[in-house]
Amino acid sequence: MSNKLQIGLFGFGCVGQGLYDVLSKSSGFRADISKICVKQQSKKRPIDAKYFTYDRFEILDNPEINVIVELIDDANEAYKIVKYALEKGKHVVTANKKMVANHLKELVELQHKYNVSLLYEASSCGSIPIVRTLEEYYDNELLFSVSGIFNGTSNYILTKTIFENLSYAAALKQAQDLGFAETDPTNDVEGFDAKYKAIILAAHAFGLFVQPEKVFNFGISTLSEWDVTYAKEKGLKIKLIPTIKKHDDGSVSVFVAPQFVNSANYLFNVENEFNGVIVEGAFSDKQFLSGKGAGGHPTGSAVLSDISALSYGYKYEYKKYKQNDNVKFNNDVLVKVYLRYEDDNFIKQLKFEEIYVKHTSDRFKYVIGQLPIGELAKYQDYIKEHKLFVSLTKESPITPITKKEGKLAEKELVHAGKA
Amino acid sequence: MSNKLQIGLFGFGCVGQGLYDVLSKSSGFRADISKICVKQQSKKRPIDAKYFTYDRFEILDNPEINVIVELIDDANEAYKIVKYALEKGKHVVTANKKMVANHLKELVELQHKYNVSLLYEASSCGSIPIVRTLEEYYDNELLFSVSGIFNGTSNYILTKTIFENLSYAAALKQAQDLGFAETDPTNDVEGFDAKYKAIILAAHAFGLFVQPEKVFNFGISTLSEWDVTYAKEKGLKIKLIPTIKKHDDGSVSVFVAPQFVNSANYLFNVENEFNGVIVEGAFSDKQFLSGKGAGGHPTGSAVLSDISALSYGYKYEYKKYKQNDNVKFNNDVLVKVYLRYEDDNFIKQLKFEEIYVKHTSDRFKYVIGQLPIGELAKYQDYIKEHKLFVSLTKESPITPITKKEGKLAEKELVHAGKA
Repeated sequence: MSNKLQIGLFGFGCVGQGLYDVLSKSSGFRADISKICVKQQSKKRPIDAKYFTYDRFEILDNPEINVIVELIDDANEAYKIVKYALEKGKHVVTANKKMVANHLKELVELQHKYNVSLLYEASSCGSIPIVRTLEEYYDNELLFSVSGIFNGTSNYILTKTIFENLSYAAALKQAQDLGFAETDPTNDVEGFDAKYKAIILAAHAFGLFVQPEKVFNFGISTLSEWDVTYAKEKGLKIKLIPTIKKHDDGSVSVFVAPQFVNSANYLFNVENEFNGVIVEGAFSDKQFLSGKGAGGHPTGSAVLSDISALSYGYKYEYKKYKQNDNVKFNNDVLVKVYLRYEDDNFIKQLKFEEIYVKHTSDRFKYVIGQLPIGELAKYQDYIKEHKLFVSLTKESPITPITKKEGKLAEKELVHAGKA
Repeated sequence: MSNKLQIGLFGFGCVGQGLYDVLSKSSGFRADISKICVKQQSKKRPIDAKYFTYDRFEILDNPEINVIVELIDDANEAYKIVKYALEKGKHVVTANKKMVANHLKELVELQHKYNVSLLYEASSCGSIPIVRTLEEYYDNELLFSVSGIFNGTSNYILTKTIFENLSYAAALKQAQDLGFAETDPTNDVEGFDAKYKAIILAAHAFGLFVQPEKVFNFGISTLSEWDVTYAKEKGLKIKLIPTIKKHDDGSVSVFVAPQFVNSANYLFNVENEFNGVIVEGAFSDKQFLSGKGAGGHPTGSAVLSDISALSYGYKYEYKKYKQNDNVKFNNDVLVKVYLRYEDDNFIKQLKFEEIYVKHTSDRFKYVIGQLPIGELAKYQDYIKEHKLFVSLTKESPITPITKKEGKLAEKELVHAGKA
């Protein structure tokens, strides 16, 4: 595509305006925003009213416009817009991780069918070029795992609880006051946002396509001062970490959960709204990428880099998927967790393979043990209801449960002493 | 280029063998090594002798071979091979940073003239995909600076002096015994290797082409226990840091020098043979990439990713250069340095703009002051001869010297006290 890009923009929130800023300040760039579709007609806007329309089809059916940039919040609306645009033969750039994660396989087929390109670097880890890096650079690299901190809001909250001794509630309030967190923070603090990103990266890293409802996500909303104290006393931090791990049998696990990290971990120093990604491969060893995870400008610059890539006909090749279109999703794995609990009967119910530590103090109770992650998912509502907290330990193995192994007898090593 | 790649390989050292390993273990990959050109006929090799030749033209003039992978040490020989190959219409992948840095502009023209692709990701920072990231991702991003740790050998030595209290000589010896450092370590410890990499990145980040002899490189070979003590007492580490910085007037500085870093700096925790790159941009803010900087497998995987990119016709676009082919190189800048010295007359000779600290103890003397970096370059031989040590301070400004500014009167704030 060598002709100038005529962009139709959907949404003019923080990212849309960020893009507009970046675009207007970037030299030698062959792209123009011809129209912007917005919802609220009343709202005051910083640029000329002639740019705006309230009718999506004024953009989607305009043959002059060859690129759609979709930056609206509503994932369902976004899906309709993107699908319609692709079918109309327009290239699309989107930052909507939920929409991409929910429809990725279909979106890949639509790109192929209509010979158009859909790019979504901005959907994952803001300004970190992780999709492109996995797609392009690690092609044919034997990858083991991709993990990191993918959500700036929850990381901001966790940072505050550690450094400023704020309670979860106070840290959340601060994040909301600063505009880092939404009024309903569920998406960020319960790990949904990180999960959507992990699902997108799993496709580019391992060729796996998995539906969000199949992927476990545990959040940080039940974090208590005791959990923070436990971490601090051991020189650890708690981070909300999505894990994408390939097993020896070729199957791939994907889940999001809090995890303890020590100072030897790259993620230990990724604070506030920053994101970090660790990529482990057979030959490149351990790679680490870090940068601003959110905000209008970082995301805007990621969107711009996709628009720029379109200008020379770039499209994702989904090479890992083409190399092996039958990757098995496998969350039937054993993990080692810290679980703060109240009722001993609950611990008895959970099918622990092994319990290494059972701690009871006048302040709180926890166990450290190994169990199938599916067990925790089964009781996820109970855990949230009773404000219990679960976190992977700092070196938790993630091992597939093989039939041979089966379930070991339940052992309990009871430890007394203070947390 | 959709047909299978037939590779002619030059050199079968650590990287060449690494590539061979990676290639043989990578699935679904349309490339074969048809011939390997080596020098020593006697040497025992781990793979079948039928692969080897001692006549370069058996590869270069073979029409079946469409990709040359050049992995030899000798930069002049490498240049002849690469130039000949490009003129023959073959694509080339090289890891030879010195060769690329010395001939980059001509190599860009040859690519254009013969419509072939020359890729050299492996030439800079081993497994970190920095060339591709700057070229692709930061296209149209307003970049401010690129800096980091580009040389694993010197970083390994510096790490040992800090953590194991080894003297520079002892740390160098250890690095040599482990094969990290060559018998003549000049290239690594005096900053030449890092300089070549910085020159390559300057072209992709800012469109600047500059000859190596114009770029200052200060090394670590004169590091003494006093310098290490000074750093430790202030909670700092010493790293050998290439800096590529764009100024407000559009001119770009490039130089390599030791610099003090504190724990807030991403590079503080980049240890041993690891590399790290910090990219600062207007919209993406601060990005950090880290990974193994050297070794057969990391470099081999970088070479492989270039070979893979060739398989779908990838070539560097040198967009920054096309956007502005007249970027001014500007090392006429003021920097703030720590300089350990012996003779006060030497300090008087140096044209300091300002001296902030003058320290004299029974053990050693140093000044901390601001001066044109060219002044230091002028006396580089003297500094090495007398085993003095110079390092940028942790927040050293890098400000172009404007006529208006001129030279300030020399002030001296003499501080007593121990280091």
